[in-house]
Amino acid sequence: MTRAARPDQLAEGVLAGDRRALARAITWVENRHPGADELLRRIYPHTGRAHVVGLTGAPGVGKSTLAAALARHLRDTGQRVGLVAVDPSSPFTGGALLGDRIRFSHGPVDDGVFFRSLASRGQVGGLSRATGDVIHLLDAAGMDTVLVETVGAGQSEVEIMRYAHTVVVVLAPGLGDDVQAAKAGILEAGDILVVNKADQPGASRTVQELRQMLDLGAPRDPGWKPPVLEAAATAGTGVDELVRTLRRHREHLESTAAGALRHRWQAEEALRQQVLARLWERLKAGGRWDELARAVAGRQLSPGEAAERLLAFLRQEPARPGPAPPGATPDALRFHGT
Amino acid sequence: MTRAARPDQLAEGVLAGDRRALARAITWVENRHPGADELLRRIYPHTGRAHVVGLTGAPGVGKSTLAAALARHLRDTGQRVGLVAVDPSSPFTGGALLGDRIRFSHGPVDDGVFFRSLASRGQVGGLSRATGDVIHLLDAAGMDTVLVETVGAGQSEVEIMRYAHTVVVVLAPGLGDDVQAAKAGILEAGDILVVNKADQPGASRTVQELRQMLDLGAPRDPGWKPPVLEAAATAGTGVDELVRTLRRHREHLESTAAGALRHRWQAEEALRQQVLARLWERLKAGGRWDELARAVAGRQLSPGEAAERLLAFLRQEPARPGPAPPGATPDALRFHGT
Repeated sequence: MTRAARPDQLAEGVLAGDRRALARAITWVENRHPGADELLRRIYPHTGRAHVVGLTGAPGVGKSTLAAALARHLRDTGQRVGLVAVDPSSPFTGGALLGDRIRFSHGPVDDGVFFRSLASRGQVGGLSRATGDVIHLLDAAGMDTVLVETVGAGQSEVEIMRYAHTVVVVLAPGLGDDVQAAKAGILEAGDILVVNKADQPGASRTVQELRQMLDLGAPRDPGWKPPVLEAAATAGTGVDELVRTLRRHREHLESTAAGALRHRWQAEEALRQQVLARLWERLKAGGRWDELARAVAGRQLSPGEAAERLLAFLRQEPARPGPAPPGATPDALRFHGT
Repeated sequence: MTRAARPDQLAEGVLAGDRRALARAITWVENRHPGADELLRRIYPHTGRAHVVGLTGAPGVGKSTLAAALARHLRDTGQRVGLVAVDPSSPFTGGALLGDRIRFSHGPVDDGVFFRSLASRGQVGGLSRATGDVIHLLDAAGMDTVLVETVGAGQSEVEIMRYAHTVVVVLAPGLGDDVQAAKAGILEAGDILVVNKADQPGASRTVQELRQMLDLGAPRDPGWKPPVLEAAATAGTGVDELVRTLRRHREHLESTAAGALRHRWQAEEALRQQVLARLWERLKAGGRWDELARAVAGRQLSPGEAAERLLAFLRQEPARPGPAPPGATPDALRFHGT
């Protein structure tokens, strides 16, 4: 691989399963390299084969350890496995208070598993778009399973539903009571619930409570009752049952209308992320942004009025051949007539 | 107040501090009533006086109880107080698994405090836009303090920074260790940290650990070292000190460049929310959405290619006089030429 790869060359490398090409392609996507769009266009027809599994849950439940254990287990059965850790936290620092070193404590993830972490850089929709694109790259590179771990709770279980075929919600005994867990909306997202740290006291009570909660709520998929499993990821217990249940859920999706519906919804979400992120780049680059933001801060214009003026400029923008190269001057992106 | 209020009449009622007008104005904003834009335009010049305080933290730490105690305390000192509870959880059910009844357990919030809860209805940016608009309404109605409580953790502390002058991060002893708390990025958002349930074991250790964490991280505002307070909201302990610290932070913002910067950033965020939500309404209404989403699902077009085609349609859309009335037929919103 030369330094100055072309998008078609890089796409070829990714499709051949070359790890270095894959790593580089992910960097292109993260940095919005001018060739990223073409790269993604070339690999996209070859996606749709991997089983994309999301792992989410509150901080402290052991998601990273479980993700690593799951990745190793799948690799041991001969699968090619990708693991993406997504950190949607701070818009100010990119979530780098402690650095990846501490944030993702997977323990040794060996060469049989392709690992990459993604962090927000404060772009609107940027992380979401990148996550989807990176999953497509891993899928096109021939990964059988792509594990996507989101750090933090709250919105991340909504985020993960955009990409994952199967959402695994990880919980731990005694971490908040059942009503509190429901408060975070987290149970509704789960296709499979795993009570991790099952060797700690209170695990079976938590399993019991979760099953009762699930009986009360409306299921996301009427044909699939989310199983509640126990695991102790540090000891490796329960991982084999999780793998079997993942396979069973995948077969369920492939054989029901619910799976097709989810697939369609996810395509819409991918489109939505792309549209929002692209619009955002153009509005910011259009030059009117600062002027209108100042007027809002000074209370001369309400946010709604200012938004309408920005949208009027957007309508006047000439069609553009593609994304701007990094470092392009604002002038090159200026809206027509402004 | 007649049933068929005009935006100018409703704005007048809000500005006069009429509670029924305020309640109705909030409903307009939530439902995207055709008069909501004019209403907001009229009240906006009268905003900017309230102290907007955000409360965020993981499920189970006692945010709701603390918010209610804080509201009562402020009211007892003669303030007019608004309390908004924001639930950003599920895009599928609107987060209504258990209903507001259980989700917001404030205990009795009496008439001296204006309380309202907002829930996502699955619109992109819709909840964010509504939250900002509701804060403006409460501000214009003469509230001295507007408390905004976000339910859930994770992205909500990012969300809350968009609106709150002062962000209070609520924690509880033993709920996850220090590294895990940092993982969620939650500490970085806080101007004030409150260890609630300080009557439980481990509270002082948690305070100690948080102070050490804060010494390690880069502060959001170099001139303000976030204090770590203790409270026991059910007993009312620590609320007076929190009130004093809130006042001190407000004075800090008013007297430093950091405050002006934050104000400017928040105006930008309000504008951003408005732009995204409005664009979204128009793209969905434009009729091309379904066709392009199908092409993405069928892998005939990559999400990026489909996004560019949608944006080309948006550019052709004629200028519109204002938001569409609820129940407008898709035809009334159809893009020109499609």
